[in-house]
Amino acid sequence: MKIQRLIYYMLLTVLIASCQKTSNEVQIKDVDPLPSWNEGASKSAILNFVQSVTDSTSASFVDVEDRIAVFDNDGTLWSEQPMYFQLAFALDQIKKMAPNNPEWKETEPFKSVLNNDIASVMQQGEGALIQIVLATHGGMTADAFEANVVEWMKAAKHPRFNRPYTDLIYQPMLEVLKYLRANDFKTFIVSGGGIGFMRPVTNLLYGIPAEQVMGSMMKVEYDKENKVINRYPELAFIDDKSGKPVGIYNFIGKKPIAAFGNSDGDLQMLEWTSTNENSFMMFVHHTDAEREWAYDSLSHIGRLKEGFGVATTSGWTIADMKKDWKVVYPFELDK
Amino acid sequence: MKIQRLIYYMLLTVLIASCQKTSNEVQIKDVDPLPSWNEGASKSAILNFVQSVTDSTSASFVDVEDRIAVFDNDGTLWSEQPMYFQLAFALDQIKKMAPNNPEWKETEPFKSVLNNDIASVMQQGEGALIQIVLATHGGMTADAFEANVVEWMKAAKHPRFNRPYTDLIYQPMLEVLKYLRANDFKTFIVSGGGIGFMRPVTNLLYGIPAEQVMGSMMKVEYDKENKVINRYPELAFIDDKSGKPVGIYNFIGKKPIAAFGNSDGDLQMLEWTSTNENSFMMFVHHTDAEREWAYDSLSHIGRLKEGFGVATTSGWTIADMKKDWKVVYPFELDK
Repeated sequence: MKIQRLIYYMLLTVLIASCQKTSNEVQIKDVDPLPSWNEGASKSAILNFVQSVTDSTSASFVDVEDRIAVFDNDGTLWSEQPMYFQLAFALDQIKKMAPNNPEWKETEPFKSVLNNDIASVMQQGEGALIQIVLATHGGMTADAFEANVVEWMKAAKHPRFNRPYTDLIYQPMLEVLKYLRANDFKTFIVSGGGIGFMRPVTNLLYGIPAEQVMGSMMKVEYDKENKVINRYPELAFIDDKSGKPVGIYNFIGKKPIAAFGNSDGDLQMLEWTSTNENSFMMFVHHTDAEREWAYDSLSHIGRLKEGFGVATTSGWTIADMKKDWKVVYPFELDK
Repeated sequence: MKIQRLIYYMLLTVLIASCQKTSNEVQIKDVDPLPSWNEGASKSAILNFVQSVTDSTSASFVDVEDRIAVFDNDGTLWSEQPMYFQLAFALDQIKKMAPNNPEWKETEPFKSVLNNDIASVMQQGEGALIQIVLATHGGMTADAFEANVVEWMKAAKHPRFNRPYTDLIYQPMLEVLKYLRANDFKTFIVSGGGIGFMRPVTNLLYGIPAEQVMGSMMKVEYDKENKVINRYPELAFIDDKSGKPVGIYNFIGKKPIAAFGNSDGDLQMLEWTSTNENSFMMFVHHTDAEREWAYDSLSHIGRLKEGFGVATTSGWTIADMKKDWKVVYPFELDK
């Protein structure tokens, strides 16, 4: 009887273990993959799209190798107000580099930057901004630039929230990224921002490794003697508007089946994606002045209206921040 | 007693199943990951390197996200004789396109191509070859070009082996690719060849998806009206020599820890990789005239000697085809 009881308990243990496994699996399936999205058309559209392209019995099924999803960064994965974070970085770098560039005290646009007269910098137009970007993003090794970016990301605080800029990423979009990857999508960033500025942090912030980050590029050259990559103060590629499909073709070599953007700069990427039979296009609409910002156009990013117009007339999915998002930033979850 | 016996058999089944699992695991561990490599210094060097960077207790341990391995293609993953396969494609395309370009009958270098006078084409130098490449790789949509490549890959036969060119991939290198990936490496192609020529076949041949293939690039533009990518007869980026570290920086954003090449065009990529503390550099040496080819320099690919010289003086691993490889091509395994 003793042995029988032992055998009975052993069997029971095995059975319980196997039951637990099944119960876990069911549980995982029942968990909402997008908990920060309010129920509604936008959330349903994402869920339905992923379900249809991953269902091997569906006519819309897409092979794993073609499950490519591309995301703009500024205004789509993190905020872009009151200015592009990369521009805030560049302005801070000008101040840091000023001691070695005494002539900047008397030369625009640097003079205005050093005097904290940002309004005047902005008034000097795009040319002035490009001058600031070139001076702070070139003329150094790739390693030195990366160190500057990492240092700034750690120390700088966003003026409105008094938190690191990297705290201002969108919780609902993090859930979309994770949900897509759980369904064997490969997620890429395709941003007008610089690759060297984003790559040091994208894996930590979004789970997107450096090699899946496309963006605008400075001219770089390999120094054979010192075996280092040098960055030059010259733009080599602008990953914006029609540049985005070009960047995707060159870097990925596949037309995405899902694209997420929020501005005119993303329009061509979304339109190109839409020529794929089974595709999903989402336009993030900044409608929440209280938790984020509400805007349809802004000086430093140009007009957004064309993109939003095409998005609505084409029936793309609109993510209305105010209506669709339960929370905007991850730190709201801690409250 | 009946129930007892039943319980006994059930338990036995469970035990056998669990034992089988253990035995399978042991078996997998004991299988040689590089069966086409002869025992020797080169094979040991690969195995030791992978073991050291994946052993979490070792000082040489490398995080999974930094396990980047880059491979040249021509002469490193597939053969490059009697001419680059991409050049063979271009010559065939000239013939295919000739009816729509009647003036080629009287214009060099096209005239010599149409007369099958390849010696004369080669004598006309690099400029002539570039003319042939531009005429056949540009002036069409990306989709049309891809269709041309796929059609050619299916139909064309290598003159020496009378087999598809894609049969001439190196079995020992396929094993290295697989072995690295099994150890959480991400494998990339970094080739002087064109991305559009390689990407349609790399996943099938090497298990390397299009988005992990870097190469030389033609100028491409996005046509907003027709929502297509157009290729232009203009070189935009040459992924060779110092271009390889530049390409890796722009596409991957990480310095590789393993690099595989076979020519002077790979030298800078290997040298840059070697500046990583825990890194592995391999130079494939073409020493087997019987099964493949034996050469240290060749007209259409320039000198290889500088790269081989640096490889030997730097103590990089040499893959001597004749000595180190049991088989060269996968089709030899079928014999």
